[in-house]
Amino acid sequence: MLPLLRRTFIRYNSTIANATAAGKSPTAIVFMNMGGPSTIQETHDFLYELFADNDLIPISKKYQPTIAKYIAKYRTPKIEKQYREIGGGSPIRKWSEYQASEVCKILDETSPNTAPHKPYVAFRYANPLTDEAYKQLLNDGVKRAVAFSQYPQFSYSTTGSSINELWRQVKKLDPQRTINWSMIDRWPVHQGLINGFSENITRKLKEFPENIRDKVVLLFSAHSLPMDVVNTGDSYPAEVAATVYKVMQNLNFSNPYRLTWQSQVGPKPWLGAQTAAITKFLAPKVDGLVLVPIAFTSDHIETLHEVDLGIIAESPYKDKIKRCDSLNGQKLFINGLASLVKDHLQTGELYSKQLPLDFTLGKSSDPVEDLSLLFGDHSKK
Amino acid sequence: MLPLLRRTFIRYNSTIANATAAGKSPTAIVFMNMGGPSTIQETHDFLYELFADNDLIPISKKYQPTIAKYIAKYRTPKIEKQYREIGGGSPIRKWSEYQASEVCKILDETSPNTAPHKPYVAFRYANPLTDEAYKQLLNDGVKRAVAFSQYPQFSYSTTGSSINELWRQVKKLDPQRTINWSMIDRWPVHQGLINGFSENITRKLKEFPENIRDKVVLLFSAHSLPMDVVNTGDSYPAEVAATVYKVMQNLNFSNPYRLTWQSQVGPKPWLGAQTAAITKFLAPKVDGLVLVPIAFTSDHIETLHEVDLGIIAESPYKDKIKRCDSLNGQKLFINGLASLVKDHLQTGELYSKQLPLDFTLGKSSDPVEDLSLLFGDHSKK
Repeated sequence: MLPLLRRTFIRYNSTIANATAAGKSPTAIVFMNMGGPSTIQETHDFLYELFADNDLIPISKKYQPTIAKYIAKYRTPKIEKQYREIGGGSPIRKWSEYQASEVCKILDETSPNTAPHKPYVAFRYANPLTDEAYKQLLNDGVKRAVAFSQYPQFSYSTTGSSINELWRQVKKLDPQRTINWSMIDRWPVHQGLINGFSENITRKLKEFPENIRDKVVLLFSAHSLPMDVVNTGDSYPAEVAATVYKVMQNLNFSNPYRLTWQSQVGPKPWLGAQTAAITKFLAPKVDGLVLVPIAFTSDHIETLHEVDLGIIAESPYKDKIKRCDSLNGQKLFINGLASLVKDHLQTGELYSKQLPLDFTLGKSSDPVEDLSLLFGDHSKK
Repeated sequence: MLPLLRRTFIRYNSTIANATAAGKSPTAIVFMNMGGPSTIQETHDFLYELFADNDLIPISKKYQPTIAKYIAKYRTPKIEKQYREIGGGSPIRKWSEYQASEVCKILDETSPNTAPHKPYVAFRYANPLTDEAYKQLLNDGVKRAVAFSQYPQFSYSTTGSSINELWRQVKKLDPQRTINWSMIDRWPVHQGLINGFSENITRKLKEFPENIRDKVVLLFSAHSLPMDVVNTGDSYPAEVAATVYKVMQNLNFSNPYRLTWQSQVGPKPWLGAQTAAITKFLAPKVDGLVLVPIAFTSDHIETLHEVDLGIIAESPYKDKIKRCDSLNGQKLFINGLASLVKDHLQTGELYSKQLPLDFTLGKSSDPVEDLSLLFGDHSKK
């Protein structure tokens, strides 16, 4: 299926290229995410970029690149093995390109005054990196671009980091400010997202016998954060909880549920309860468990490896534990994304009212000093 | 004002007493909360009960009473001083009695088939304690009672503790099971609660000059939990976040906001970010701050002393920091409480679908083993 998606993406880009050639500058819809190595060979560079990010892992402004080189080299063999075990790479690029393409197709119909819309992907740690994407936008004659964070819930260490990187690339690649940027920085309870999760949960619950179906525990699982980041007042934990609550409202509280946190690494304290520990504790006691990834929209190593091959496959109770499918190419979800972008384009909002506070509280060695200098029309200034 | 409230309560009770005397057993509406010492003299016993609660502070099943005696004795002078500084006691009893009375008056109109309704207060650590309230219910010939947790968001250490205490009193005082209990165990996004908070926030914001009003940061503050409780999978942090998000939706995200946590004590790690630390960090940087107590509905020492006399009064920026009023006797809120109880009585729900999972995950030295044995009709069994 993935080569097919890639072909769709390329074909769609050609259509847009024709429209652009006809004279109208496209509205760029730029899907931002952390990314993952599409091939095993990209693993080392992905890890280096990740550990070199002071917004994600605040180590040291001065020594971080050196330390990142060391950690990346040390961890590469283990992580390469994990990517091999999930099929030779992360599917996140393919899904992101597919989602962005589909969203632009819908927008061309629903938002003709901003058409044509052209899809881009800008990853923070993997190809296509932000600088590569930015160069492509400039080549394509883009004058208006929407940076669309694919993290539904805002964290300074994820979306914040992508914004800081975008600002560095604006200063480096676009000093004339030819592109007018706006930002969709969070959408934790957008109806398309909530409907998407609800549909997949309902379908997964149907795999359990009817007589126990409403007793199955839904364990919503989100990537955790170190407590020293939580303690800065990062938006993320509360926004993830808002997503979970809205999904449960949408499901009319059909099942018992809990929000837990995964992917803790290193010796520092992280936000819990931990998904693995709660799964282990509950599995012998309950009729069934569904793990629901709630803070990423596409599959990635934390679902395909950590949850599927780790938490579930290694459990003695694996027969009663299932994972809810990620949203990936789900129609309901993609329609939701398109409607979200359409609303954003119509309201003319540059970024959310929360974002300046996020940047006041967030810690970074090289932050955007003033968001109003990054977003909006700054041409010929 | 408080003596007036007390008179209202007594007068209303007399009315009910007449109705009861006329023959129809009243539906008891039992407001449960932690409580606080109404007079300085009650401070020691309040502290003893609090530190003796293994559900709130899991120390040791065997030695907890002894340790509690020691801690209570040691802390009493300091806490007595704090209660003196807020007027000689906690107002939580007066507010609870007033709210419960008003709710019953409304229910007598809106839910005639369950009338008459009789208000009770059952505190976990202060008078009236659960056993005292239970004896009163038995004396009043109650056969149907609704335990209504006044913590809108569920924590095993608060509402869970009240339920465990109720079960102990059922076994001790009501072995014949004359009273049929049901439970309102959480209501984090009930519209009456959300409207109540929203009204008070909007009114407080009007105290700021119009030109900065929408830049004022709303700092929602909830009582924190130790991380070892958070890490059991306690419901509380996510439900508090759900309340905050719903209030902000109700306010159409008029202001930047953040959820922070207060009242951390002792050397163990607690959930942050801490309200005091974030207030200190933000105060010099922002135009204004409103602290919004979001997990208690009435004033108590954590609002009147910790926030008003501590965080705000001691800040060099106190002129631009305000506290949102607690809900206390607010009409909108009390109407909401009444409508919540009415719906509960009509649906016949015994307790929420989350509660058994809360009791599976919660740690306690003397828990309810099976909620279905506590709630519902168990008479003559």
